[in-house]
Amino acid sequence: MKIRPLHDRVVVRRKEEEEKTAGGIVLPGNAKEKPSQGEVLAIGNGRILDNGETRALAVNVGDTVVFGQYAGNTVKIDGEDLLILSESEIYGVLES
Amino acid sequence: MKIRPLHDRVVVRRKEEEEKTAGGIVLPGNAKEKPSQGEVLAIGNGRILDNGETRALAVNVGDTVVFGQYAGNTVKIDGEDLLILSESEIYGVLES
Amino acid sequence: MKIRPLHDRVVVRRKEEEEKTAGGIVLPGNAKEKPSQGEVLAIGNGRILDNGETRALAVNVGDTVVFGQYAGNTVKIDGEDLLILSESEIYGVLES
Amino acid sequence: MKIRPLHDRVVVRRKEEEEKTAGGIVLPGNAKEKPSQGEVLAIGNGRILDNGETRALAVNVGDTVVFGQYAGNTVKIDGEDLLILSESEIYGVLES
Amino acid sequence: MKIRPLHDRVVVRRKEEEEKTAGGIVLPGNAKEKPSQGEVLAIGNGRILDNGETRALAVNVGDTVVFGQYAGNTVKIDGEDLLILSESEIYGVLES
Amino acid sequence: MKIRPLHDRVVVRRKEEEEKTAGGIVLPGNAKEKPSQGEVLAIGNGRILDNGETRALAVNVGDTVVFGQYAGNTVKIDGEDLLILSESEIYGVLES
Amino acid sequence: MKIRPLHDRVVVRRKEEEEKTAGGIVLPGNAKEKPSQGEVLAIGNGRILDNGETRALAVNVGDTVVFGQYAGNTVKIDGEDLLILSESEIYGVLES
Repeated sequence: MKIRPLHDRVVVRRKEEEEKTAGGIVLPGNAKEKPSQGEVLAIGNGRILDNGETRALAVNVGDTVVFGQYAGNTVKIDGEDLLILSESEIYGVLES
Repeated sequence: MKIRPLHDRVVVRRKEEEEKTAGGIVLPGNAKEKPSQGEVLAIGNGRILDNGETRALAVNVGDTVVFGQYAGNTVKIDGEDLLILSESEIYGVLES
Repeated sequence: MKIRPLHDRVVVRRKEEEEKTAGGIVLPGNAKEKPSQGEVLAIGNGRILDNGETRALAVNVGDTVVFGQYAGNTVKIDGEDLLILSESEIYGVLES
Repeated sequence: MKIRPLHDRVVVRRKEEEEKTAGGIVLPGNAKEKPSQGEVLAIGNGRILDNGETRALAVNVGDTVVFGQYAGNTVKIDGEDLLILSESEIYGVLES
Repeated sequence: MKIRPLHDRVVVRRKEEEEKTAGGIVLPGNAKEKPSQGEVLAIGNGRILDNGETRALAVNVGDTVVFGQYAGNTVKIDGEDLLILSESEIYGVLES
Repeated sequence: MKIRPLHDRVVVRRKEEEEKTAGGIVLPGNAKEKPSQGEVLAIGNGRILDNGETRALAVNVGDTVVFGQYAGNTVKIDGEDLLILSESEIYGVLES
Repeated sequence: MKIRPLHDRVVVRRKEEEEKTAGGIVLPGNAKEKPSQGEVLAIGNGRILDNGETRALAVNVGDTVVFGQYAGNTVKIDGEDLLILSESEIYGVLES
């Protein structure tokens, strides 16, 4: 089962972050910051502009995107927590 | 009796969620999160744009939609609690 | 005496709700939720759009409409409490 | 001395309400709700739309209008308290 | 020295109000309401509309205008307190 | 080193105010109101309108402008505190 | 690894500020104000206007920009804290 996001929405799977601090201490699950990077799993058809046109999104499926730590909303699909972001909540795309 | 929603509104019947926790404990009604998925029962004619045009909605009757846990408003029709959402409160459509 | 609502406003008479609970107990007036359905008594000429056009409303006199419990404002006309709603506060129209 | 309201503003004289309750008790001045009906004394030239056009108001001098109890601002002209309303604060016009 | 207001701004000198109450008691300076009438000393070139046009203001130098008691901002020019109002804060113009 | 402000921003150097009260008492630095007049040092290219056009600002370098006491943001350039204002925060221009 | 910012976003590396006060006292890391200047590392394609057009940004890679002390959001890329700003949060560009 997968989700088809509407309009300017994007479905993102958060990237698991290192579970060690810089000093090498392993952090239990609740003491970690939520990661603010993730992989785009699905994108909407585009943002609807005031003049009625639809503008394609600037991110693609497979992109690694960066966003604010508290951005978006979490939904549970097939037991997995996924993040729903509006394109405007995405800061940019990571490139190697 | 049924409700014909106006403009960009959508009538949704919440999907009943599992009444057991992962550990198999049966939860009484008030200890559960409200499900944030549901079936679309009726849709409005579309969103009215600033230029006066009407834009058809991106969901259809029968779709299973995902939305925020506290989104929308509940109305009681023929004794059943139904949810009224604006299309902009719907994150996406579930597809098998 | 009657009221001619302006623009996108609608005059609604709240539908009296059952004064018994599901268990058959008669509720005194103050212990009841205000009904969120009502009959449209009068409608304005339409919503004025940004481009200056007037768009006719999507409800008609005689419709039974559904709205939020706290929507609108009450005015007293000839001793009767009537509700003034903007069309945007109306969720939909009940059809038998 | 009179006031010429600007644009979408309307000058209204509140209608004095009955000073008796339904049970016939005379209320002193401070125990009454402010009346939310009044007579239009003057109207502005119209609302300025985003496209620069001016749209004539939908009320006329002499109309009895209905508005929210706390709407508008009071000004004192020649010792009389008058109410300044924007057209958007007026619910409708009373007709006999 | 004088001030040339920008765009939709208007420079107003508050009208001194009677320093006696209705009963003839002289009020010291701090016990008075600030007057909400004043004389227009200077006006801007006009409001800039969304489409880039400039729309001339509806008040003129010399007009006596009525405004809300707390509207605008005070600036001190040559030792005199003057009020800077946006045209939208002006209710209307007094005419004899 | 100087700052080139973007779009509708304006760089202003606050005017030093008299350090004496009307009664001739010299005020120490912290007991003074911040002056709300200043000299324009640099201006942006103009405000970007909704239709994509750029509209030149209505103030020029060298103008003495009046603004609200708490308007704008302070930046330190070469050790000097300068004020960054949006044109909309400027009330008007002082003319001798 | 680098970040490609979306639309009107700009990636900025904060400029390290002097770690001494004017009096020559060295400040430990936490007692310093965050610098509000930085170097532009990457810019988005431009701001999307209401009419659907994209407007190129007014800053370029390599510019030293000035912004509010609390503007923007910090992201960690390859272990380095970078700032993501919207162009509208940038006051101006420093020029020597």
